[in-house]
Amino acid sequence: MSLQLYFSPGACSFVPHTLLEISGAAFEPTMVKLHKGEQNEAAYKALNPRGQVPVLVDEGQVITQIVAIVLYLDQKFPAAQFLPTDALARAKAIETLAWMNNTVHTTFAHIVMPHKFTDQPELHAPLKAYNTALYRTLLGELQALVVAAQAAGQPWLSGAQLGPLDAYGLTLTRWGSLAGIDPEGFPALWAFVNQVATHPAVARVMERERLQLNLFKPA
Amino acid sequence: MSLQLYFSPGACSFVPHTLLEISGAAFEPTMVKLHKGEQNEAAYKALNPRGQVPVLVDEGQVITQIVAIVLYLDQKFPAAQFLPTDALARAKAIETLAWMNNTVHTTFAHIVMPHKFTDQPELHAPLKAYNTALYRTLLGELQALVVAAQAAGQPWLSGAQLGPLDAYGLTLTRWGSLAGIDPEGFPALWAFVNQVATHPAVARVMERERLQLNLFKPA
Repeated sequence: MSLQLYFSPGACSFVPHTLLEISGAAFEPTMVKLHKGEQNEAAYKALNPRGQVPVLVDEGQVITQIVAIVLYLDQKFPAAQFLPTDALARAKAIETLAWMNNTVHTTFAHIVMPHKFTDQPELHAPLKAYNTALYRTLLGELQALVVAAQAAGQPWLSGAQLGPLDAYGLTLTRWGSLAGIDPEGFPALWAFVNQVATHPAVARVMERERLQLNLFKPA
Repeated sequence: MSLQLYFSPGACSFVPHTLLEISGAAFEPTMVKLHKGEQNEAAYKALNPRGQVPVLVDEGQVITQIVAIVLYLDQKFPAAQFLPTDALARAKAIETLAWMNNTVHTTFAHIVMPHKFTDQPELHAPLKAYNTALYRTLLGELQALVVAAQAAGQPWLSGAQLGPLDAYGLTLTRWGSLAGIDPEGFPALWAFVNQVATHPAVARVMERERLQLNLFKPA
């Protein structure tokens, strides 16, 4: 058995990192230092030409893209119930996963990597400002999902067991705090994220990635 | 049986529209006129608060997000083989679907809807220009995927049968032509997309959505 995860501390690779930790399977977590540009080095580009984390390597086979990795791990470790098996509940969970990935995540990219969307440095500040306001709205949507799940008696966003939506939700809320959005402004979301952080597997991953949950600094 | 698809002509809803047409199942295609702002009307917002297409309604249950709808339809119509069943091949197909959705699609949004990323009208032109150049690079990546599939003796991007990646590939190439990128500059991709367009189900959907494949106008 050979299972390897390339991750960067606090990046969205936190999601598969958490799932692998929950699975109980042996795996090799390999750190990619984005701030040192390791994702653009030849060795890493050979693995993932797009230079992104996460990358999962299973018996030498490379899988990229968080949505693909999550679905692959769900299929590989069915006992963990990362996603619901009921067709409709599963579709709704994947709907939220896709939204987190193509909307919330992308909005954050405009805040921390505006150079990905424009080569004009004078556009960076307005892009950051507008997308930070947008991100605040999206955290409100995320909080509404948490409240709805709890109202439906569902302990986690992902379903009956802690899974990808919960780990992604923690990541996105933590990113918000990095972008200057006080997570305590979203009490239900913040309480939920703190609960996610105390799950033993999540706590182990946070320890390994050396993550602080709240990076908000009052002005 | 009640199966309804809300689509907008030429939007990414083309993908589930094509899958439903291939499935042979009875479904009700309902047009949402984005240029008239119908996606922001109360009736539609009640269905999808995010005001986006596509929306699939199966027996009254609403599913949004193209990735979620594609996976749901794959599960509902297994005989159509929309996605490979082998775990690794399936992961690689979902990897490409996710990339089309979170990267290529998002880049196009900067070209046609720059107001989604900034409230400053003077930023629209530079965002459009930079992301059009980026989109050209991404069409090159898409072409490389087509060439690789063909080299591996795989008739379609989605696997053995025409599926979501092929319909999305056609859509993204057509969008490029709308953004002023001549598809004939990508011969292998353009030949492939034309082949996709001649598939009977795809041709019926193009007819229903009244789509012209190439919208490129030389300057």
